Amino acid sequence: MIKKERYYFDWAASAPPDSSPSISNCWGNPSSQHCEGHIAKQVLEEARCRCAVVLNVSPETLYFTSGGTESNCIALYSNLFNKADVRVIAPETEHVSIRDNLTNLKKLGKLTGKIPVDSSGRVTPQLLANSLDKYKDVRFAAIMAVNNETGAITNMPALRDILRSLSGPRVHLHCDMVQAVGKIPIDISLLDIDSASISAHKIGGPRGIGLLYLRRPIETIYRGGGQERSQRPGTENVLGALALAACLENRAGEALNDDYEHAVRRWKRLINALKNMDRCAFIPENRDENTFSPYILQAAFRGIPGEVMTRALDDLGFAVSTGSACSSSKTERPVLAAMGIDKDISLESIRISQGWTTTEEEIDLLIAAIAEVLKFL
Amino acid sequence: MIKKERYYFDWAASAPPDSSPSISNCWGNPSSQHCEGHIAKQVLEEARCRCAVVLNVSPETLYFTSGGTESNCIALYSNLFNKADVRVIAPETEHVSIRDNLTNLKKLGKLTGKIPVDSSGRVTPQLLANSLDKYKDVRFAAIMAVNNETGAITNMPALRDILRSLSGPRVHLHCDMVQAVGKIPIDISLLDIDSASISAHKIGGPRGIGLLYLRRPIETIYRGGGQERSQRPGTENVLGALALAACLENRAGEALNDDYEHAVRRWKRLINALKNMDRCAFIPENRDENTFSPYILQAAFRGIPGEVMTRALDDLGFAVSTGSACSSSKTERPVLAAMGIDKDISLESIRISQGWTTTEEEIDLLIAAIAEVLKFL
Repeated sequence: MIKKERYYFDWAASAPPDSSPSISNCWGNPSSQHCEGHIAKQVLEEARCRCAVVLNVSPETLYFTSGGTESNCIALYSNLFNKADVRVIAPETEHVSIRDNLTNLKKLGKLTGKIPVDSSGRVTPQLLANSLDKYKDVRFAAIMAVNNETGAITNMPALRDILRSLSGPRVHLHCDMVQAVGKIPIDISLLDIDSASISAHKIGGPRGIGLLYLRRPIETIYRGGGQERSQRPGTENVLGALALAACLENRAGEALNDDYEHAVRRWKRLINALKNMDRCAFIPENRDENTFSPYILQAAFRGIPGEVMTRALDDLGFAVSTGSACSSSKTERPVLAAMGIDKDISLESIRISQGWTTTEEEIDLLIAAIAEVLKFL
Repeated sequence: MIKKERYYFDWAASAPPDSSPSISNCWGNPSSQHCEGHIAKQVLEEARCRCAVVLNVSPETLYFTSGGTESNCIALYSNLFNKADVRVIAPETEHVSIRDNLTNLKKLGKLTGKIPVDSSGRVTPQLLANSLDKYKDVRFAAIMAVNNETGAITNMPALRDILRSLSGPRVHLHCDMVQAVGKIPIDISLLDIDSASISAHKIGGPRGIGLLYLRRPIETIYRGGGQERSQRPGTENVLGALALAACLENRAGEALNDDYEHAVRRWKRLINALKNMDRCAFIPENRDENTFSPYILQAAFRGIPGEVMTRALDDLGFAVSTGSACSSSKTERPVLAAMGIDKDISLESIRISQGWTTTEEEIDLLIAAIAEVLKFL
């Protein structure tokens, strides 16, 4: 086919990029009614369908956002349009983008509440049932699938059963899946949840792109050009969507299962070695490996502030963190506090998290490095 | 210097990207307290400083967002935290991400109001003064620098003078600069505005990155990990920020002036040719070229619906649009309606917009193509 000459006079919609970031030539504005726009629209919808196949949901339920935080915000702030007498609840172990926005919702006049957690930092079916019983007026619950600081996996099917057994209006169940999708086996379609957040950059994709799963469209606070079927305004990030589809595919099916198994094996190796170090305490203390993600470990090293350990390991070439990057500038550890962990231990705690390219050799080197630090500090 | 071996155990903060999108190796999470995080943070702040130099403002006033729509939303929704008796006003010729969010603010119980525009679609000093006089309780005004459908340039200094001459609390002046920055000479620091929105993809940068200028920090609706000094949550899009800095630099200083001059010359050529076509009417009719951007032209071709003209030109290889891409799926033309343009003419109207790589030859081909369409339709 002969390549037809094209003349672009829609720069106000989107400018051709300074340097082509991709061979796919899909820089047009998907909302534009010309070839460049149609191509971009097709590529965007292709990306959405590919994400939908991996996530086993209908493409109509997926909306591209700028990331996990925005996805959480869009879902949470739909409650601004609720009647005044309904309540939004979440545990204090949620990611800060749930926690702080819950506080903000309260400030804006909405009813909110906290779901207690057990010593592993988890909402149990009983604790959720108690909360629903206590408040009566709950219409929205945000509960994460995998805790970003401890790796604790929530028993979402059990919580769903509690919520779906209620008489009265359906409670919207929002699930932050940022540390779950692409890392542990999870099937949105089986969970009967109402919304879920996914971030590309946690699973090998670029920054600035994520997904919001919505079982049904919601009322959103940010409005604009009607993009993403009016659930998320702003010119669509087509290349980001493509990259997200690709990284989801990379972390799906057999690859996910393989990665998961290898991660479990490496994590066992790490945990067994740390167990033998006198000054090491896991958080939570009892860690049934089947209910924790093999990608995240929280551990305290007695007598060494987490910040010092982090710096010492960094000097030796090892990147670990004192907690969520999103909260790392703060001296408090609200997630650990909600679990009832002593402040002393909290401040000595670090988060170690691995990925699919982490090797056993790297694990052994990390163990040796921690032992080295413990020798001198 | 010997490259030190690094071992990454902070995958929960951000995963190394599947394929390196850049040689700069700045994929770390800028909030993380390790080398990878520090590098990312440095690169992010370098990008911010480079943007600040181009925009002639302090880096502390610039916040990276996902784009123009989000920047508009962040500024507008700061009004949710206002006292109940203060008002937000904007003209109906604003971008849909201002217009529709103003409607939403009203729905959420805030006082809002419309600033009338003259026949060119512009807020004049007199019209603004009238609005302030009518409402008395205005604390926030959103007025765009360059209209995205007509190219009309607002006389921002004159409007600023009106606002700043008021006694009483300072009125927040928000300026959507998406079609201005990088296209026409504009200096934020001289305007004494309170906030401004900038989008990368309109000036040759990638999708999913933009800037919000804020003279002073504001209260924001979306909260999270405290990134961007708590004005915009979510892990920072470092590569996007770098790309935005680069495209701003490409469209600054001498380059901007050169591009502008050439754009004016090409636009004159186009306008003169269209003037000689009987069925062509410019919108607005009287177009003083000094008060219109040479990058955008709105013109109606009598007897041919804008959609038909757009499709006919697209078939000939020319990408033009029926209006804002953000509103292109709608049959209404609210910006033109606000200008008092007859609905008939509105629906026959198309937007032609050019860029810095557009050539005189392309202009001549477009003129010929339009003449061709007019011959047959």
